[in-house]
Amino acid sequence: MTQTFDIAVIGATGTVGETLVQILEEQDFPVGNLHLLASSESAGHSVPFRGKNVRVREVDEFDFSKVQLVFFAAGPAVTLSFAPRATAAGCTLIDLSGALPADQAPQVVPEANARVLDGLTKPYQVSSPSPSATALAVVLAPLRGVLDIQRVSVTANLAVSAQGREAVSELARQTAELLNVRPLEPKFFDRQMAFNLLAQVGKPDAQGHTALEKRLVHELRAVLEMPLLKISATCVQAPVFFGDSLTVSLQLGAAVDLAAVNLALDSAPGVELVEEGDYPTAVGDAVGQDVVYVGRVRAGVDDPAELNMWLTSDNVRKGAALNAVQLAQLLIKGLV
Amino acid sequence: MTQTFDIAVIGATGTVGETLVQILEEQDFPVGNLHLLASSESAGHSVPFRGKNVRVREVDEFDFSKVQLVFFAAGPAVTLSFAPRATAAGCTLIDLSGALPADQAPQVVPEANARVLDGLTKPYQVSSPSPSATALAVVLAPLRGVLDIQRVSVTANLAVSAQGREAVSELARQTAELLNVRPLEPKFFDRQMAFNLLAQVGKPDAQGHTALEKRLVHELRAVLEMPLLKISATCVQAPVFFGDSLTVSLQLGAAVDLAAVNLALDSAPGVELVEEGDYPTAVGDAVGQDVVYVGRVRAGVDDPAELNMWLTSDNVRKGAALNAVQLAQLLIKGLV
Repeated sequence: MTQTFDIAVIGATGTVGETLVQILEEQDFPVGNLHLLASSESAGHSVPFRGKNVRVREVDEFDFSKVQLVFFAAGPAVTLSFAPRATAAGCTLIDLSGALPADQAPQVVPEANARVLDGLTKPYQVSSPSPSATALAVVLAPLRGVLDIQRVSVTANLAVSAQGREAVSELARQTAELLNVRPLEPKFFDRQMAFNLLAQVGKPDAQGHTALEKRLVHELRAVLEMPLLKISATCVQAPVFFGDSLTVSLQLGAAVDLAAVNLALDSAPGVELVEEGDYPTAVGDAVGQDVVYVGRVRAGVDDPAELNMWLTSDNVRKGAALNAVQLAQLLIKGLV
Repeated sequence: MTQTFDIAVIGATGTVGETLVQILEEQDFPVGNLHLLASSESAGHSVPFRGKNVRVREVDEFDFSKVQLVFFAAGPAVTLSFAPRATAAGCTLIDLSGALPADQAPQVVPEANARVLDGLTKPYQVSSPSPSATALAVVLAPLRGVLDIQRVSVTANLAVSAQGREAVSELARQTAELLNVRPLEPKFFDRQMAFNLLAQVGKPDAQGHTALEKRLVHELRAVLEMPLLKISATCVQAPVFFGDSLTVSLQLGAAVDLAAVNLALDSAPGVELVEEGDYPTAVGDAVGQDVVYVGRVRAGVDDPAELNMWLTSDNVRKGAALNAVQLAQLLIKGLV
C-alpha cells in the first residue's frame, strides 16, 4: 500500500491554485485528504478533484495539524500570516508567493538545484520562485557547465494571468470595447492594456525596480547558485492572456560554442528546444505544457561572446503550479 | 517669396508614405508640385494634401527630372530599382527602406548626427534609419557625453503597422475571431498574432538574425558615431497596432549618475522624459507624437554601472516619416 499525504492548498480558487489541484490529480500524487483554502470572499466555491467537487474553506479557521503538506498559492501577506501556524503544526510548506526569506525557505527549481532539498531539516520549508525566474533557471541551468556566463539581460513580456482572473477578464473586456469602438475605461490596469504594452508589473520602489524584477534577480542567482551573476531584468505587461515570452541575452567570457549549447539544451530536463529556423510562441506552444520552449538560439550580430535566446513558458503551470508539485514529489520522499 | 521644391513620394499609399505627406502639410513644408507614386496596384488611389486629393501615379512611368526631392518610402527593391534614375536626374534622395549602403547614403537622425549632412555633395543621398534605430538614437545621443556606454542590450517590441496595412487588418481580424470564439486561420502572419508575441519580425539569416535586427545594430552604431559599440538586439512582433516599446539596458564603464542622465534627457531635442514614478506607453503617449517617450530610468538592481530605460515611439511617424521630413528640412537649406 502506498502512503498518502493530507494536503492543504491555500489560494485554491486562484489561477495557480486551481492548476495545482489539477496537476496533483494528473500526476496521481498520493493525496489522502485534500483541503482547499482561501480568503473569506472565495470560501464556498468548489474546485473539481478526482471526479468530486471539493468545497473551498476559510483559511482563518483551518487546523493545520490535519495535514502534512501545505501549498501557499495566495499572496505574500497570506503566507506571512499562516506560515508560522503551518510550521508549528509540523507541516511541510511550499510557498509560491515569494514572501519567505531564502535562509528560511530556499528557492528551488528541481531541474536546477534539487540537491538543496537534501540539506533541509524538518519541517521542510521551500520556495517555488517566480514564473520568470523558474523558466530562466530551467534553461540556464544546463548551460552553466558549457558557458562562462558573466551577465544576463532579460526582458520578460508577461501574461496578464500572472495578476489573476480579474486581469484576464479586464484584457478581454478592454479588447472587446475597442473592437466595438466603445469608450475605454481602464479598471484593473491603470491604463489601456488591450493592444498596448505596460512598462511595469506592479509599483516600482524608490530605485525604480518592481518587486517582481528584484525577485527575478535574486531568485535566479540563488537557484543557479551563481551569487555574483550580473542580471538586468525588465518585466513588461503584455496583452497576452496566458504564457510568458522572454528575450534573453547572455554575455560570456569566451566565444559561444553554439553546437554545445544546442546539445545541452536538447538533452536538458524541462526544456524543449525547437528546430532551427522555427520559433515557439506562448499561445501556440508553451500554454498547457510542462516544459519551457527555447528558440532563436544565436550569437551576437558580430559578437561571438554573446548568446541570445527566446523563451516561452506557461507562467501559471510550468512557472508556478507544476514547479511546486515537482518540489512536493521530491520532498515527500523524505516524509515517507 | 519663399523658394518651393517639387517633391516625389514613392510608396505614397503606405502607412509611412501617407503620414509623410501629412507631415509635409502640417509643417508647411515649401512644397511646389507634389507627385505621389506607387506600384501599379496602388496607382489610381488618392491621398489628401492641402485640401485637395492628389492622385497616385505609377512610379515606373515617372520622369524624375520634374522634381528636386524624392522620398523613397516603399520597400528596398523599389529603392534599388529607381534610386539610380532619381540620382541621375539630380534629385536629392531620402531613403527609408534601408536599401542603400552607408557610404552612398549615410544614415542620419537629426537629433544625433545632423552634422553628417554638411559633408555631403550633390545630389544628396541620405538614409532615414529603421524606426527602432531612430528612436534609440534620439535617446542615446544626448547620453553619449554623460555616460561611458560600452554595451547596449535592446528588446524592441514592435507594432504590426511596421509591416503595413495588411498586418494591421490581420491583427484586428484575428482578435475579433478569437473574441467571438471562431476558428482562427492566420493569413498574413505565420501563426496566431492576437494575444500572442512572435519571436521575430521577418525571416532570420543562417546565423539567426533578422534583417531588421542587423539594420538596428549597424544603423545605431553609425548614427551614434560609435562604430565599436556592442549591441544585442531582438525585434519582437507585439499584438499592438501602432507604436513601438523598447526595453534598453546599457552597460557602462562607471557607476551611472542618474541626475546627470535625467538632466540630459530632459533637455534633449526629440525626447520627452516622463515624471519619475510614471511611465509612457505606445498607445497612450507615443502614437501621433513627434518625440520619443522615456520612462523607468534606473540603475541595475545592484549594479550601479547599469542603466535601464523604457522607450515608446510612434514607429510610423517619429521613427520614419517625421525623421525623413526633418532630414528634408535640413537638406533643402543646401538646395536654396
